[in-house]
Amino acid sequence: MHGSAEVAAPLFLSIGVLLLFAWGFGELARRFNQPAVLGEIIAGLILGPTVFGYLSPDMLHWLFPAEGHTASMIEGITSVSIALFLLVAGMEVEFSAIIKARRIAAITGIGGLLVPFGLGFAGAYAFPEQFGATEGHYNAIFALFIATAMSISALPVIARTLMDLNLYRSELGMITIAAAVLNDLIGWLVFAVILALFGIGHTGASGIAATLIMTIAFSVVMLTVGRRLIDKGLTWVQAYLSWPAGTLGFVLVVTFLSAAAAEAIGIHAIFGSFLAGVALGDSKHLSEHTRKTITQLVSFVFAPLFFASIGLKVNITANFDLMLTIIIIAIAFAGKILGSGITARLSGMSNRESVAIGVALNARGAMEIILALLALQMGIINERLFVSLLVMALATSLFCGPVVKRVLNLKPGKLFVSYLSDKYFLSSITSRTPFEVIGEMSGLFARTGLDIEMIKETLIEREKLMPTGLSNGVAVPHARIKGLKQPLIAVGISKGGINFDSSDGTPAHIILTILVPENGNELLLNLFAEIAKTFNQPDASSLLVDSKNFAQFLSSLKVLTENVRTH
Amino acid sequence: MHGSAEVAAPLFLSIGVLLLFAWGFGELARRFNQPAVLGEIIAGLILGPTVFGYLSPDMLHWLFPAEGHTASMIEGITSVSIALFLLVAGMEVEFSAIIKARRIAAITGIGGLLVPFGLGFAGAYAFPEQFGATEGHYNAIFALFIATAMSISALPVIARTLMDLNLYRSELGMITIAAAVLNDLIGWLVFAVILALFGIGHTGASGIAATLIMTIAFSVVMLTVGRRLIDKGLTWVQAYLSWPAGTLGFVLVVTFLSAAAAEAIGIHAIFGSFLAGVALGDSKHLSEHTRKTITQLVSFVFAPLFFASIGLKVNITANFDLMLTIIIIAIAFAGKILGSGITARLSGMSNRESVAIGVALNARGAMEIILALLALQMGIINERLFVSLLVMALATSLFCGPVVKRVLNLKPGKLFVSYLSDKYFLSSITSRTPFEVIGEMSGLFARTGLDIEMIKETLIEREKLMPTGLSNGVAVPHARIKGLKQPLIAVGISKGGINFDSSDGTPAHIILTILVPENGNELLLNLFAEIAKTFNQPDASSLLVDSKNFAQFLSSLKVLTENVRTH
Repeated sequence: MHGSAEVAAPLFLSIGVLLLFAWGFGELARRFNQPAVLGEIIAGLILGPTVFGYLSPDMLHWLFPAEGHTASMIEGITSVSIALFLLVAGMEVEFSAIIKARRIAAITGIGGLLVPFGLGFAGAYAFPEQFGATEGHYNAIFALFIATAMSISALPVIARTLMDLNLYRSELGMITIAAAVLNDLIGWLVFAVILALFGIGHTGASGIAATLIMTIAFSVVMLTVGRRLIDKGLTWVQAYLSWPAGTLGFVLVVTFLSAAAAEAIGIHAIFGSFLAGVALGDSKHLSEHTRKTITQLVSFVFAPLFFASIGLKVNITANFDLMLTIIIIAIAFAGKILGSGITARLSGMSNRESVAIGVALNARGAMEIILALLALQMGIINERLFVSLLVMALATSLFCGPVVKRVLNLKPGKLFVSYLSDKYFLSSITSRTPFEVIGEMSGLFARTGLDIEMIKETLIEREKLMPTGLSNGVAVPHARIKGLKQPLIAVGISKGGINFDSSDGTPAHIILTILVPENGNELLLNLFAEIAKTFNQPDASSLLVDSKNFAQFLSSLKVLTENVRTH
Repeated sequence: MHGSAEVAAPLFLSIGVLLLFAWGFGELARRFNQPAVLGEIIAGLILGPTVFGYLSPDMLHWLFPAEGHTASMIEGITSVSIALFLLVAGMEVEFSAIIKARRIAAITGIGGLLVPFGLGFAGAYAFPEQFGATEGHYNAIFALFIATAMSISALPVIARTLMDLNLYRSELGMITIAAAVLNDLIGWLVFAVILALFGIGHTGASGIAATLIMTIAFSVVMLTVGRRLIDKGLTWVQAYLSWPAGTLGFVLVVTFLSAAAAEAIGIHAIFGSFLAGVALGDSKHLSEHTRKTITQLVSFVFAPLFFASIGLKVNITANFDLMLTIIIIAIAFAGKILGSGITARLSGMSNRESVAIGVALNARGAMEIILALLALQMGIINERLFVSLLVMALATSLFCGPVVKRVLNLKPGKLFVSYLSDKYFLSSITSRTPFEVIGEMSGLFARTGLDIEMIKETLIEREKLMPTGLSNGVAVPHARIKGLKQPLIAVGISKGGINFDSSDGTPAHIILTILVPENGNELLLNLFAEIAKTFNQPDASSLLVDSKNFAQFLSSLKVLTENVRTH
């Protein structure tokens, strides 16, 4: 029906392949403890002109056409994806956290903003050519953009890193997040103004002033009156309309209309959806359920689609400028780490903490990439500079997690799921009594080179001391073993059930035999607590008892442990 | 950057307004116990040429352009929306339910398929003009389409109706669902073949045969080998990849690629995503969490966007043909209710049950609308027939819920939330002892015209018999009251807490004073069970105790009761 001259792949082949690659490489990145966005960008680069297009330009053009009906349809999907991603990013902002940690956060946030902003502006204004400014541009606007690009933070990356390290609710975490929020709010505001300046650069001073005033007014209104109205509206909708249909619809209506308002002002739609997210996320009445439903599908499906689509638009090898990239990275690292770190130190944080805050705020991640992409699309920057900013965004994000961990000397606790292995798994226990079961399961540890008889004796001795049957059909025979370096957990399943003398009188169907190093008492207690919580869910053991192999067992267990973690 | 001649509203204004109307009218439909899709379609008709376009064609063209970049972007979004909706519809199919109820379901399903199919085919083949066939069409293909349109069912509508009536897990529910699934699988298969026949009508018999074979092969493979592979894949992904990111990504990758495969065969993408949904939904390893995350955002955001967008394409007043609509509705009702009802009766169901099954299977809802829309887009039918099918789809769905309820003489239980009202709400109790609290709260019932002193006495008498403090900070003073017709529940909040002598020793912060009619013993027990379950959640009463007004209280309570309902 549409443009018969157009030869393009069917829509779902394009987005199916795009999501497949984004999903696969995102997972690979996570496997190496890196942010998924790194993998997703690489997926796009592989599918785009950099790799796939180099091998077969025709196929690329067919699968991901640059223009026409299919290209527009894909753009519609990625436009909604990015607006939803900014909604989620906005919801992660804890407006109240800024208020709580306002003194240090304000100083740190502004320090972390002004230093890179100043360095970026001075550099780009003094040497526009080296920074890749195009002829005929207003140098000041260009320098303003570079300054903003240097001072932005990646709230989602920072928040996730802090959560992974169990620091999100700590004082350090709160200060970092609050500083990042302040950073981002101001950064995006300045960027909105740049877009306005650039877009209407020819309409004269009065037009610029109007957009500027409208942008600031829109932001202020959304974060004050709008925030309170949204809170009231959300409460009303949740109380009187159907649930969750009414609430989910309301959240998305607010987001889209706020995005539309931003578009009407002349700034980018995503600024509106970000502000809507901040306002919505601040409401106490946005239930965890609503938040999770939106966050998960967006983070794991729509955001990957969007980030992978970026790589489709740029040829990284043809536009890679080593010198420019080094300059950008150097200013970015120096400006942010020094700016935030020193101000954090001055406001009373310890040396280590100040470095950690500096490094955390240095992560630019997804936010920088979106900023750069918009600037590229508007013609503010060229592809060379875009690639350099892309590399800088990824480099600063990669640097963040491992370095913060090392600086603070953290060893994040492992979940008990991570100690399980198909090597120590018995899908069907044949024994009938606890001691027999212990004997049967001890055999699983043969390959460790440990003394099996000794293990068996120690486990039985402990069992005699006091039975290890917990309630809800799980038993945890355990022992501290001399010479053991890492905990070992064997899983045994008994359909018939074994009487481990549990507190609630039920037979044990899932037997977790746990060996810990000699000094592993604390670890043991943590494992017990986690296991008890996991099996305290209705049907937990009946869900697991049907597992025919380790993958099935682990698959069901993952869901159970995740329920516990997020409640 | 795109076609400068195009003057269209910014993307987010278009979809924001579309979602706003779909959300509002969908909610309105629910308020009147009607399927939301009815409201969503009406929203589209109001925004489209039927109403808004009639008032201001230019504004319509600006807000929802029929062609160009914005139109394509919106089409991209609605294309993904409908594919996701069919995924969800497919996931609702319980493949195993068909196996369990296979005998009656097969007979009923095939009866409910063959009779309307036969009537539809005979009618349309004999009187093509009356049915709105266009000149120069293959009459047989057209009649085949009408036959299919008559025999399809609306699985999502039927499933939701049965769930609302608490019949989903009953024998009657299982048979109805199984019959509907069989119905839909065959119906969509035939439709896929029609699309193939029509699309390649000019390529000769060998091309037709090829598409036919590929369509059937694709369906069979997806429902046998594919289903098992997806189950294995899902298990593996959930066990070894990150959770829930890996799982959600996997589900969507499978869906999009299955849609792409359907497109490659030459049938519509949504057939692929429906089959993917059936295969995925059948896997025991698709966790409730994954299912809900996808289902809710799709059902309450993307599906409404899609259904509202339908109304944008059609002018219902200009294309409404009363005679045609009556014929279509008559054949649809007669064929389906007789076909399914009589075969259900013959297979041993009671009279009432058979009628209920017939009426339930008669609902065409969303599925019919999608089928008709595709046929319209392909040029198989004209707008007149499309409007008649649309009206028929809505009429059969509207008919379903109330009539099944009446035929089976059901009075679905009301949730305790539905008895609450801001007239009986006290945000801050001043009393300190249970008897004083009862006195204070009895005052709330003054406006009912009942004897307040008598209520107070009865409540206190009951309280003396045995204290009504449940655990977890809630107390339920209650009494059976002569002359009361409907239960009344008053809510009182005490920040300090009142000692209602609860089993766990905690003071009561939420006091629910319950009055039931004299014969309301069973009702009372049900209310207690529901209240206990609701407050058995961690932090339930601490979440509620901060409510400053009734809306805030109800808003928080809705989330708590929903948690309980779906677990």
